[in-house]
Amino acid sequence: MMIKDFNIREKFAHISEYWTPKVVAELNGQYVKLAKLKGEFVWHDHENEDELFQVIEGTLFMDFRDGSTKTIKRGEVLVVPKGVEHKPWTKEEVWVMLFEPKVTKHTGDVQYEKTVTNLEWI
Amino acid sequence: MMIKDFNIREKFAHISEYWTPKVVAELNGQYVKLAKLKGEFVWHDHENEDELFQVIEGTLFMDFRDGSTKTIKRGEVLVVPKGVEHKPWTKEEVWVMLFEPKVTKHTGDVQYEKTVTNLEWI
Repeated sequence: MMIKDFNIREKFAHISEYWTPKVVAELNGQYVKLAKLKGEFVWHDHENEDELFQVIEGTLFMDFRDGSTKTIKRGEVLVVPKGVEHKPWTKEEVWVMLFEPKVTKHTGDVQYEKTVTNLEWI
Repeated sequence: MMIKDFNIREKFAHISEYWTPKVVAELNGQYVKLAKLKGEFVWHDHENEDELFQVIEGTLFMDFRDGSTKTIKRGEVLVVPKGVEHKPWTKEEVWVMLFEPKVTKHTGDVQYEKTVTNLEWI
């Protein structure tokens, strides 16, 4: 493995699609991913993996099955524990940095038209 | 484990000492830590753990044994692979977010006056 450094915002220039996480780094069996989000995603959970969202730009809303919604703004972090169903959505374009195990699928156990199976590095 | 959310900058208000990482979240056997850095730290490596530094404020310099120095500014990320000796230093106060396995000691295998053994949550 090599020493790696990058500017988070500059990396987003390489992302054109929404809901399509791209890998920017790996460490300790985890991936750091960047994604642009807009609109609604699917309800899903990750049976064995916790997931961290850091909002780089915009405001991310996260619905939970108890009816609550977390509002995560730029500079804020949300950790969703394994097994907790969640549904991300946004009103505008949102940039997030994700931290999760390499095995994590972004739609969890739900196969969906938006499920990306071949992760691309940027 | 609970759903957790926080504002990164607000958390730094709880840190008064330099070179003393505080834990803000855990996921998948990893800790997310925040630290204020100023001046020079000790040369060290982590035999089995990769380490991620995200600069939240200021400019972090990282020396390596080949004589090179990485300059990591606000909004930039550096990943130091396991086994790579590194020495962080700053000219001014720097705020960093760290991502590393729970077992990682911040001074690696070097026991040092700055080594913190009891990690505090904030």
